[in-house]
Order: sequence, then C-alpha cells, then structure tokens
Amino acid sequence: MRAYEIIHAKRDGRAIPPAELAALVEGFTRGEVPDYQMAAFCMAVFFRGMDGAEVRALTDAMLRSGDVLDLSDVPGPKIDKHSTGGVGDKVSLALAPLAAACGVKVPMISGRGLGHTGGTLDKLEAIPGFRVDLPVERFRALVRDVGACLVGQTARLAPADRKLYALRDVTATVESIPLIAASIMSKKLAEGIDGLVLDVKVGSGAFMKSLDDARALAGTLAGIGRAMGKRVTALLTRMDEPLGEAVGNALEVVEAVELLRGGGPADLRAVTVELTAEALLLGGVAADLPAGRAAVERAIADGRGLAKLEEIVAAQGGDPAAIRDPERLPRAAGTYPVLAPASGHVVAIDTEALGLAAVALGAGRARVEDPVDPAVGLLVRKKLGDRVEAGEPLCVVHHGPRSEPRAAVAARVVRAYRLEAAPPPARPLVLERIA
Amino acid sequence: MRAYEIIHAKRDGRAIPPAELAALVEGFTRGEVPDYQMAAFCMAVFFRGMDGAEVRALTDAMLRSGDVLDLSDVPGPKIDKHSTGGVGDKVSLALAPLAAACGVKVPMISGRGLGHTGGTLDKLEAIPGFRVDLPVERFRALVRDVGACLVGQTARLAPADRKLYALRDVTATVESIPLIAASIMSKKLAEGIDGLVLDVKVGSGAFMKSLDDARALAGTLAGIGRAMGKRVTALLTRMDEPLGEAVGNALEVVEAVELLRGGGPADLRAVTVELTAEALLLGGVAADLPAGRAAVERAIADGRGLAKLEEIVAAQGGDPAAIRDPERLPRAAGTYPVLAPASGHVVAIDTEALGLAAVALGAGRARVEDPVDPAVGLLVRKKLGDRVEAGEPLCVVHHGPRSEPRAAVAARVVRAYRLEAAPPPARPLVLERIA
Repeated sequence: MRAYEIIHAKRDGRAIPPAELAALVEGFTRGEVPDYQMAAFCMAVFFRGMDGAEVRALTDAMLRSGDVLDLSDVPGPKIDKHSTGGVGDKVSLALAPLAAACGVKVPMISGRGLGHTGGTLDKLEAIPGFRVDLPVERFRALVRDVGACLVGQTARLAPADRKLYALRDVTATVESIPLIAASIMSKKLAEGIDGLVLDVKVGSGAFMKSLDDARALAGTLAGIGRAMGKRVTALLTRMDEPLGEAVGNALEVVEAVELLRGGGPADLRAVTVELTAEALLLGGVAADLPAGRAAVERAIADGRGLAKLEEIVAAQGGDPAAIRDPERLPRAAGTYPVLAPASGHVVAIDTEALGLAAVALGAGRARVEDPVDPAVGLLVRKKLGDRVEAGEPLCVVHHGPRSEPRAAVAARVVRAYRLEAAPPPARPLVLERIA
Repeated sequence: MRAYEIIHAKRDGRAIPPAELAALVEGFTRGEVPDYQMAAFCMAVFFRGMDGAEVRALTDAMLRSGDVLDLSDVPGPKIDKHSTGGVGDKVSLALAPLAAACGVKVPMISGRGLGHTGGTLDKLEAIPGFRVDLPVERFRALVRDVGACLVGQTARLAPADRKLYALRDVTATVESIPLIAASIMSKKLAEGIDGLVLDVKVGSGAFMKSLDDARALAGTLAGIGRAMGKRVTALLTRMDEPLGEAVGNALEVVEAVELLRGGGPADLRAVTVELTAEALLLGGVAADLPAGRAAVERAIADGRGLAKLEEIVAAQGGDPAAIRDPERLPRAAGTYPVLAPASGHVVAIDTEALGLAAVALGAGRARVEDPVDPAVGLLVRKKLGDRVEAGEPLCVVHHGPRSEPRAAVAARVVRAYRLEAAPPPARPLVLERIA
C-alpha cells in the first residue's frame, strides 16, 4: 500500500493494517513520505480516529524509530508518571524525589512547555546549573544510584514522534486522541519502565476539556501500555483551575519545595500524594493505596523527599542550595497585583487564558524556538469557590523585561475569572481512577 | 488569521471569511503557505465542506492567481462546455464545431486524461500536427475568426489551481465537491466566456457515483458561475457505460467524425445534440431548446459541423485530411476481441474499470508525466441492455507496443461486465437539467 492509498483508506473510515502503518511511519521518518501526505493523513485520523490495533501499531512504529532504553540491570521497580499537561502542574518536581525516597526508581523523560501549558524541563532549568540533557549512560547511572533522573527527550528517542509532533503542531492536528496517545506512549515506552502513572487532566486548562474525551484518552493510553506489558494506572484529575498557586518556572520550583517542606497549597499536595501513592503501588513498594499515601506523607514529614530533591539537583549539575534558599532562584524584576473589579465567589476560571497570561509574561513559549524567562509568572491568590471582595488581589504578577504591558496582562487575568454571588458546588480533585 | 488558524477553524466546522481564504490561496501560490498546511486544509474541507460564500471566494482567489482573458472585443456570444469527466466522452470534438457552425463562439480550454477518464487535449493530439499550446493572441484570433479554438491550460491561467490540484492528487483530497467546483470554475471563468454548459457525469465511470453527489456538484458549479455573472446550464448525464463505443484517443476522433457525418452511436449523438442545443440557447442563437436541437441537426445534416472541424484542425496546425480519411490517424499494431464468457443481458458495466483497461493499453496515464499512445483503446461492442451470446465480442481491443498483455486486458474487460438473464430497465441519458 502506498502512502496515497493509506490516506485514502483512512479518509474513508477504514482501519489501516499494522504493517502498513509501520511502513508509513518508517517512510515518514526517513523522509520518503513527504510532510504533505503525513499532514493529510493526520487530518483524516482527526476525523476518523483509529481502533486499538491501529493505535498500538502507530505507537510501536514510533517507539521503534529510535533507541529503546533497557534498564533491566537497574534493580528495583522503574515507574514513571506522565501528565497530559496543565497550568501550574509542578507535581513531577515533588513526585520524583518522594517516590525515589520510598524505594521506587523514577526514570523520567519530560517535555517543555508549549502553548498555555508548562513543561517540567523549563521548571527544572529555573534551578541554576540544572542539566536536562544528560547522556544515556549518566541517566541510567543516576536512576540506579540516586533513584530518579529527570531529562529531556534525546534526538535518538522516538525521532518519528518528534518529527510528527512538529508537523501536527502547525497543521491543527494535535487534538486527536489516537495521535496524542501514540505520541505519549512511544516516548514513555522507550524509557525502559515497568509501570506508568498517568495524570489525565480535564477542564478549562487541559487539552481535554470534557470528561468523556479525557476518559477516552486515558483508556487509549492505558490500553497501549498494557498491550506492551506495562502496568498502568490513570487518574483523571481536575484542571479547571491552576494546580496550586504558582504558575511560572522558578515560582513553581519554590512551591514544590514548600510542599516537600510540609506546606504548600492543599490541592497540589493532595494530587501529588495521590499520584505518588499510585506509583508506589504500581512499583510494589506499597501494599495498597492507603499504605502508599502514608509512606508519601512520612517522606514529606521526615524531610527525605526534600533531601532527595537536593540530591537529584546536585547529581544533575544544579545548585542544591537553591532548593533551601529560594533567593538563589531567578527573581522577577517586579511584582504587581491584579485586583478584583467586583465582589463575589469564584465560580469558574478560564485556566487556559491564565496559562496564556503567563506565556505573555515570558514564562512559556508561543513557538518551540522561543526562550522562556524563568523568573516571571503568576501567583494565583483566588481559586475556585473563594470569596473575593472588590479590590482584593486575584493574582500577583511577577513580570520581566519581555513581559506584555501591565494593562494587557491585568485584562487577561480579569477576563479569566467568573465571579458570582453564590459559591460553586465543590468537586473532587480526582474525578476517576482507571486501574 | 494565519494558515494554522484557518486550518483549525475549518477543522472545527467554521466558515472561513472570504478575505482569509484569499490570503491562504495567495500565500500558497507564492510558496509562503507550505504544502503540508494546504494538504491539512484540503482534508479538513473534505470532511467539513464549504458554504456558497467560501466556494466563491476560493474560486475567485484561484481565478485571480493568474491571467483572466478578456474576449469582449470578440463579437458574438462566447459559450463553453465543460464535462466533469468520463469514459469515451468525445462530445467536445463535435460540440465545438457544431456550436461554432451555428453562430456561437467557443473558447474552450480543456484538460488531459488522468486516472480512468480521457481528456480532450489527448484526443485532439491524436490528429497529426494538432497544436493545443497556442499563444493567447492566437487563441483570441481563432475564436474570433474560426468560431472555436481548443487549447490547454497555460502556465499563466489559474496557477493556484494547478498547484493545488497537484497537491490534492497525492493527498486523497480530490473528491471534495467544493474543491472540485472551485478548480473547474476558476479555469472556466478565466476564459472570458459569457455562458457555460456543464455536463455533470453520474455513475460508475464518473467521479460522482451517486445522483445526490452529482446534483450537489452541479448546483455548486452553477452557483459560482451565476455569482460571477455568467449564464450557466447544467445537465446531469449518465456515465454508467462508456459514451458511444470508442474509448481511446484516435478511435474517439474517428467516432466524433462519424457523428458529424450523420452517423455514430445513438447515445453519443443524443448527448452531443442536447449539450450543443443548450449552448445555442445560452448564446441566444436559438429561441428555445427544440429550435436549438433542430439547428444542430441541420449543421450535422448539411456538413457544416464537419467542415468547421476541418477548419479548426487546419487553424491549429493539424492535418485536415485526417478528418476525412481515418487512415491518416495513428493506427494500433493490432486488434483482438474480448469474448463474452456466458450469455445474458448486459445489466451493469464497471465503466471506471473499462477506463482503466484503456489506460493499461496505453490510452491514458497513471501519472501526469506518462506519455499516451494515441492509437490504442477499446471499441465497446456491447452496451447496457444489449443481449450477448457466449462467445460474442464484448469489446474489440486496439493494442500497441506498451499495452498490458492480452490475458490481463481481457480479464479486466470481462470483470467489468455484469450479465444477467433479464434486461435492465431503460434509463434516460439526461437525468436532470439545472438551468
């Protein structure tokens, strides 16, 4: 089957045989299938979807386009956590050291922020000296000896995914569940893990705005992982407001450290403890979820999580003193509050808009080649359900030399909030668990 | 709006404002909008369609991407006929001289065969010496002085369409009614015509297999033309069997000449007379359709149509003697019959398959750069409703040095015929008229 025939068949709603999908991905990676044919194929997939066998074949072909790590010589369970992306999601910065402190090995390959969402690599790089581009052998050694290592995708890991993602990004074909699932899992399965905890975000700050879409994505992701012999648990968690208060790279590092010191916002702490407990359960170091949660709480209370983060930072070239002393992290040129124009309860937050306000400050990137300013961002002072009096700060803005002007940023923040007289009903943070 | 946002909006089913579509087409023509974005856009259009304003804007942008002929200094009504493509469709070869003989000017810009369909340019080039690549000033002079001129698309006529069609052809986005309609009309509206007769083919040998699709295409084409101030009539005609008997370039020239001599197959003659009468009506040289049909029949009976074809051929560098003497046309190396394997009535013909059999003989092209053999093709001896005895010829094959072997061609022909005991119900040739 030629590329043309594969596009034609998918366009007409037919399933593509696994061998044909593999040939398409291989041809695309080698440059034999041109971008325009792959773009048409992705748009056809957007409309027609893929069945389970197709998604597995696509994932497998992208996985096999590059190196697959073998960590079988690293003792202990190797468990990673992946979030589908949100605003203020600094869970990985705390989960990796906490899980490692509890006896799970965490080989974590993370991404950068794009669009309204942040990325773990950008957050880590706010720590002076921190290196995310380690050679594979160093990655392996740190997973073994430190218990966790957080790096970026290398050129040799799932190169087909990198090439395909860049194409999807400019052809409006990102928002396709099978393509998202294959992209995520091709990278995660290349890490040499035994199990994976998925944090599938749902709501105004997530790529999946509806519970149905999030459930479909979680099911597809879990199905791929299990078909490849991995243990997978997925939590669907609320992303209808930023997680915690901090949005912006250095600000989020500070908040993750506060969590590891036993403080930090309650929602961030609850989601982090739950996801870490799932990692302990998958790794077999906790007998059940309550035991897992208790183990995580102990690692916070006795400071082992914080010590492990310092160890990780030092091992990856960063300044561990910056963990104890936030003054050593990049600091914004100045701050200003954005005040509530009226009184009421916060009943909704356009979280994507808040994420884009952070991008406009310089915390994220509109294009993949844009630099980020590690110091800037928002502290979200009012969250869902909070009572606000007119003139109280909704957010505190940390701005920098490349930030959008104050009036524009303030307008973004004010527009993102919906205030009403009555408080909204409370909703749980973890909406569903798929295990 | 950037290209990305236009793709995204169309993907989500929103209408694109005319100015944005114009900018997209202009950017694509200049090479600023890359092929991969245009391919994704075309696939989104395949699924989401376009409304009337969008199709008109797309057509207008493609039209304005190149030169637009101004024939206002040519006296008389300028009317063209366009067929959406079929097998054995040699109507233009007879219609152009007949209409010109009746006082209508026919500025006809035609295409080449691609896929299973033939193209008027390939048929004309079977006449020794015939040139289809005349300069614009020569085209204008022949329309004025001879009354008809049949040429190919120049590089300066709707270049956006040529570039877009080439992309659609390799990305499985040809079969989209708004894209087909804009492609056809952008070229036809560049010809400087006053009116257009559309022959929208329906059935197994047409691009539109269903009456509903054909009706939608005809309505879209007519709507564009009328919005641009042109008179348009569309006939939906049956293409569930080849038109006439001849399929193949020189063979079709011979059959068109037979028609102009007062002979030829009844179906070909009926469709040709009807379409030509519509052209006379649009051009105002016939008061009504019966008068138009009578005028065409007279031009056949008194030989003015045949004389006009000779005049056209001579004016375009061809050998007019080849019109009177088919021996001067390219002749196949040999012929063989394909015999019916059983007896029965012909109840269905896979006309696309017969067209592809002609391509396999060398009469058409699988790729746009392939050469055609003018001499080869099929004479279709058994048509819908005909009684066939086992061992009678279904077709007579004219083969050449590059033809597929006899057994393979015979198998294609036999598979294309469905024979049953009872004859099928008769159906009219002209299914609908949209005026």
